[in-house]
Amino acid sequence: MAILGELGTEILIPVCGVVGIVFAVAQWFIVSKVKVTPGAASAAAGSKNGYGDYLIEEEEGLNDHNVVVKCAEIQTAISEGATSFLFTMYQYVGMFMVVFAAIIFLFLGSIEGFSTKGQPCTYSTGTCKPALYTALFSTASFLLGAITSLVSGFLGMKIATYANARTTLEARKGVGKAFITAFRSGAVMGFLLSSSGLVVLYITINVFKMYYGDDWEGLFESITGYGLGGSSMALFGRVGGGIYTKAADVGADLVGKVERNIPEDDPRNPAVIADNVGDNVGDIAGMGSDLFGSYAESSCAALVVASISSFGINHDFTAMCYPLLVSSVGIIVCLLTTLFATDFFEIKAASEIEPALKKQLIISTALMTIGVAVISWLALPAKFTIFNFGAQKDVSNCPVQDVADSCRTGAATNVIFGLALGYKSVIIPIFAIAVSIYVSFSIAAMYGIAMAALGMLSTMATGLAIDAYGPISDNAGGIAEMAGMSHRIRERTDALDAAGNTTAAIGKGFAIGSAALVSLALFGAFVSRAGVKVVDVLSPKVFIGLIVGAMLPYWFSAMTMKSVGSAALKMVEEVRRQFNTIPGLMEGTAKPDYATCVKISTDASIKEMIPPGALVMLTPLIVGTLFGVETLSGVLAGALVSGVQIAISASNTGGAWDNAKKYIEAGNSEHARSLGPKGSDCHKAAVIGDTIGDPLKDTSGPSLNILIKLMAVESLVFAPFFATYGGVLFKYI
Amino acid sequence: MAILGELGTEILIPVCGVVGIVFAVAQWFIVSKVKVTPGAASAAAGSKNGYGDYLIEEEEGLNDHNVVVKCAEIQTAISEGATSFLFTMYQYVGMFMVVFAAIIFLFLGSIEGFSTKGQPCTYSTGTCKPALYTALFSTASFLLGAITSLVSGFLGMKIATYANARTTLEARKGVGKAFITAFRSGAVMGFLLSSSGLVVLYITINVFKMYYGDDWEGLFESITGYGLGGSSMALFGRVGGGIYTKAADVGADLVGKVERNIPEDDPRNPAVIADNVGDNVGDIAGMGSDLFGSYAESSCAALVVASISSFGINHDFTAMCYPLLVSSVGIIVCLLTTLFATDFFEIKAASEIEPALKKQLIISTALMTIGVAVISWLALPAKFTIFNFGAQKDVSNCPVQDVADSCRTGAATNVIFGLALGYKSVIIPIFAIAVSIYVSFSIAAMYGIAMAALGMLSTMATGLAIDAYGPISDNAGGIAEMAGMSHRIRERTDALDAAGNTTAAIGKGFAIGSAALVSLALFGAFVSRAGVKVVDVLSPKVFIGLIVGAMLPYWFSAMTMKSVGSAALKMVEEVRRQFNTIPGLMEGTAKPDYATCVKISTDASIKEMIPPGALVMLTPLIVGTLFGVETLSGVLAGALVSGVQIAISASNTGGAWDNAKKYIEAGNSEHARSLGPKGSDCHKAAVIGDTIGDPLKDTSGPSLNILIKLMAVESLVFAPFFATYGGVLFKYI
Repeated sequence: MAILGELGTEILIPVCGVVGIVFAVAQWFIVSKVKVTPGAASAAAGSKNGYGDYLIEEEEGLNDHNVVVKCAEIQTAISEGATSFLFTMYQYVGMFMVVFAAIIFLFLGSIEGFSTKGQPCTYSTGTCKPALYTALFSTASFLLGAITSLVSGFLGMKIATYANARTTLEARKGVGKAFITAFRSGAVMGFLLSSSGLVVLYITINVFKMYYGDDWEGLFESITGYGLGGSSMALFGRVGGGIYTKAADVGADLVGKVERNIPEDDPRNPAVIADNVGDNVGDIAGMGSDLFGSYAESSCAALVVASISSFGINHDFTAMCYPLLVSSVGIIVCLLTTLFATDFFEIKAASEIEPALKKQLIISTALMTIGVAVISWLALPAKFTIFNFGAQKDVSNCPVQDVADSCRTGAATNVIFGLALGYKSVIIPIFAIAVSIYVSFSIAAMYGIAMAALGMLSTMATGLAIDAYGPISDNAGGIAEMAGMSHRIRERTDALDAAGNTTAAIGKGFAIGSAALVSLALFGAFVSRAGVKVVDVLSPKVFIGLIVGAMLPYWFSAMTMKSVGSAALKMVEEVRRQFNTIPGLMEGTAKPDYATCVKISTDASIKEMIPPGALVMLTPLIVGTLFGVETLSGVLAGALVSGVQIAISASNTGGAWDNAKKYIEAGNSEHARSLGPKGSDCHKAAVIGDTIGDPLKDTSGPSLNILIKLMAVESLVFAPFFATYGGVLFKYI
Repeated sequence: MAILGELGTEILIPVCGVVGIVFAVAQWFIVSKVKVTPGAASAAAGSKNGYGDYLIEEEEGLNDHNVVVKCAEIQTAISEGATSFLFTMYQYVGMFMVVFAAIIFLFLGSIEGFSTKGQPCTYSTGTCKPALYTALFSTASFLLGAITSLVSGFLGMKIATYANARTTLEARKGVGKAFITAFRSGAVMGFLLSSSGLVVLYITINVFKMYYGDDWEGLFESITGYGLGGSSMALFGRVGGGIYTKAADVGADLVGKVERNIPEDDPRNPAVIADNVGDNVGDIAGMGSDLFGSYAESSCAALVVASISSFGINHDFTAMCYPLLVSSVGIIVCLLTTLFATDFFEIKAASEIEPALKKQLIISTALMTIGVAVISWLALPAKFTIFNFGAQKDVSNCPVQDVADSCRTGAATNVIFGLALGYKSVIIPIFAIAVSIYVSFSIAAMYGIAMAALGMLSTMATGLAIDAYGPISDNAGGIAEMAGMSHRIRERTDALDAAGNTTAAIGKGFAIGSAALVSLALFGAFVSRAGVKVVDVLSPKVFIGLIVGAMLPYWFSAMTMKSVGSAALKMVEEVRRQFNTIPGLMEGTAKPDYATCVKISTDASIKEMIPPGALVMLTPLIVGTLFGVETLSGVLAGALVSGVQIAISASNTGGAWDNAKKYIEAGNSEHARSLGPKGSDCHKAAVIGDTIGDPLKDTSGPSLNILIKLMAVESLVFAPFFATYGGVLFKYI
């Protein structure tokens, strides 16, 4: 048995989870010390906004109070827009949750004809709990996963809209202060999400265990609902949020920048609030749900495989909880890493930000490698057996190097020009994923792949902090512009934003790489639960699944891209209408009607997220029921190998265009100046490229991650049903 | 045994082949009656250019002789440019042929250590010929396939450049006369190619049989080299020709239409001859080689599977030749179909052209369904056994409905707007391919799939005639413009060209659909020859192959698209230079230097075709040798399922943009006129879309067909080598 006893495990996991939550609250408390109520700020800390720093306004002789009031107003407008969108979305998503929970219960409950009698286990000896109760617990864990995902996304959005104006105000004191405020706010979200995900999962396992007792096969089968719940909410969050943010962004840019020639985030642009709301609901809430989904899914995949391997069969609780222990260590590692950014060092100039962020990634990876080595030594038995599709596989204890390896992979690609170079960017990540898969599988079969994914996600708190920091800085810049603050403040927030772009690209690489590994692990778990012995490409049932599965990402992308296009068109019309009909708008004497633009984005994204959502959620159900588990295996494999490519190329193509535009706008070199300035033909061409790239990199690309994971986890949850009743069509032909 | 005896088969196939060749020559003779030497024409037929028709020039009082002389001059320039390009390409391709022939001989000869002793057969009983001789015959059939492909492409190009000016001259008499000239010329190529492909293959089989005797396993294994030879030449033809044509087209358009605002095909544009040469080397020679490759490959795939099934083992020659018999019937069917276009009906107005072309497709499909039914009844035994990967599969005699079904599939997609709709266009073809695969496989395993592909290709002569007719009309329009003929002639040739676009889209659908089936059949043949029992997606060796294989089409597309981009850039610079430095060029008083532009396209496309060519040719060799047949199987399946999607979406995205531009330019509706006219902002946006789409639809898209087929046929040829020595890397790790 392992060195770490059962009691130690029972203490370590919740303690790490609680430490993470407390750390998040502490960070939030520090951010909250920046006051957005002018009077109170001066009163609270004596003078000069609570610090002894010199403000740009005071330098330039501007009125401090008015600016702060304006910032607070804009912040409230953004926060209200985001809250209203999320609540509208939750109404629809809530209905979906109820319907889908009912489907899960009915489909899984029907397997043994809703019998309440125990059944012989599939993999271990003895009697297992009846399918009806497993259906009930699966439904419960689905709802828990879904609610945790929604709450995570919502809190993330709340924190971001709490932090944006505070970052703007801190930027008056210097770039370092602004950085720390934005980064701490990102950390609040990162730690809250990873810790609550761990704690809820841990509590759920312990509560379910009271009923299941020694039937770990049934226990962890029902736990997979947690992954499905988290991931299906992520789908709607990503797709809805993605359509929202890009409709507003494209709409605002096309009329504002191209037609009216006014700067980005200009308060005269009616779509400007909707654009800033979009950053929060798309990049913050959507991405939070997405990574939470990945985390929940890879944990579930590892647990399911472990439950039918020697860990589960020997009832070794510590080894069984190894995936949760890795995540726990991850929280502590990220906590230490965060201190390097917020306390151990101080940012003095804009040029120090990007190295500081990169250092975060390096430090967390290095510490995590050590952490994983220690926890593996403590928690894993010296020798164990992993279930390997019929043939058992003995493995010696060296998953350490494996997980360390997988922490290193997913490295970013050099984002280069255009579509062709977006295609080219697929090459290196695919080879890296292929090598990770081969090495992980050779060491510990599908469990190795699930653990490789978890290893990549174990430093999620830091990754999320960096990811969330970007949109917060973006919003802060928007608020500075709208509040009419000095252009020097805008320069500082732009520097924050630009520094986050490189690391955000690394983050996207992580998200796609881990999604590929997660869905392969889920696919493996599905196959073992569905009792499929071999997925033979040469069988026509599998091959037609493979080719149709490879088609699904195209269908899905077509839907989401068209949705952004039509939503943006509505936005363009509304913005044009306001410019044409509101007198004094261009002169800045009248205020635009922001609320209508917010409503257009909200309505369009809610309406448009339904068809792609339905495609993803219904495909496994239809294929599994009509064509059976072999064809479904083909569909999953096809969607995985094809979706990864499109996700990578879409993200990098969009990114290449975005960077090209920024390069011209920044004009930092002789060559860049020869292409500019803003408004030149060359710059206009770059703006067109950027606009084409927007739906690719921010809507289609990231949503595809979810497509491949979600179809796999859904198949896993319904695997016993498909194995029993699937393939209706082939049976009757 | 079958009703049709061995003697009947021995007579029927060569007779059909010769009939096809004679018919092609007859069509050429009719086209040649249009004279491009003014004096001779009048002298030969008495008056008015050989016909009693009224010419537009005479109506408008223009000088007939000068125009004819000018047309002849331009035709000569285009023909010389095309010939020079093809000869340059053949020099490089010739070197490749020699090197690759040596590789084939050495790799395959080494299997039994260059022993000259007979070996026991793999599938049938008795002794088979030594590997060394099979290596020799494989090399010979590779060279034969390559040379047949080159000659087909070259003759096609010669005929097209012979017909283009003749079509222009006939357009003076009416749209019907021009149509018949262009269509007959297309038919010359279609019949020459399909008949010579059949005859050469038939003769090769009979000659090889003299050595092999009853060892049909070795005989048809060595015949697969024919498919590899044909297909590898197609690769270079498609890629080289595709880069050539798009470099010239994009270069000519960007400077001519956008910067200088002169019409398409204006003789002042220095790149105009290169553009017209491109149509002939890309769309004619490239496409001819491509379809010849598909035909050779699907024939070889069907023959290999048949040779290890009951046909081959029982030495039933007629049944064995069933694939060749289907092609023979196809030639006769296409001959009858052609008469409907050229002799039974007459085109009187431009609006009748598109229905006439569609009728060609419908008539050929209907007649072919009957033809296949008859030949199946005559040639196939009532019961036979198809080799099915370890398990033998008994099939009753109903491949008739199957092949008929596959003739109907591959139906075109509605080409709709932009990238999103290009993605969407993938859905229906993929379902159609999936259904074809499932049905064909259920009836006769991999043989069914090979025959479904051959069924789609059996009416290739008609398909090629329609496909070739498009670029000929396009060239004819260019010649009219350059020769300064009346705009009414240009209108007529434009009507010919436009009518061909819809049917060309159907043709592309056929090419992609048949490519998917062909490569699946080749993949199946490879797996059986390599002795792989099962290609299990769950095996990491297969899965890493699958994901890397799915990446290859992106890598390949990145290369070809970048090649077009950089070649077009060189062309743009040269065209700009000429406009800036040649005095009187814009005024039309000086002649541009066409030859330099032709040379730029030639050099660029020769240089740029090497890296993508190397990627395709080396991947199977490297993967098979280092990683073995399992990983190679994964790569083939991955490239197939991913490549088909990109090929379809690239073609349709490009097509949608092209049509959008033409819709605005034509201005045939109130809505279209509201977007135009030429030169409006909206039209300029459409031209940009069209320019982006050019490399997608004419270089990357069609080349991907070849990528998936060629890697499969190459793996098949080298299968015994990989099975013996493959997987070096895994053996030593």
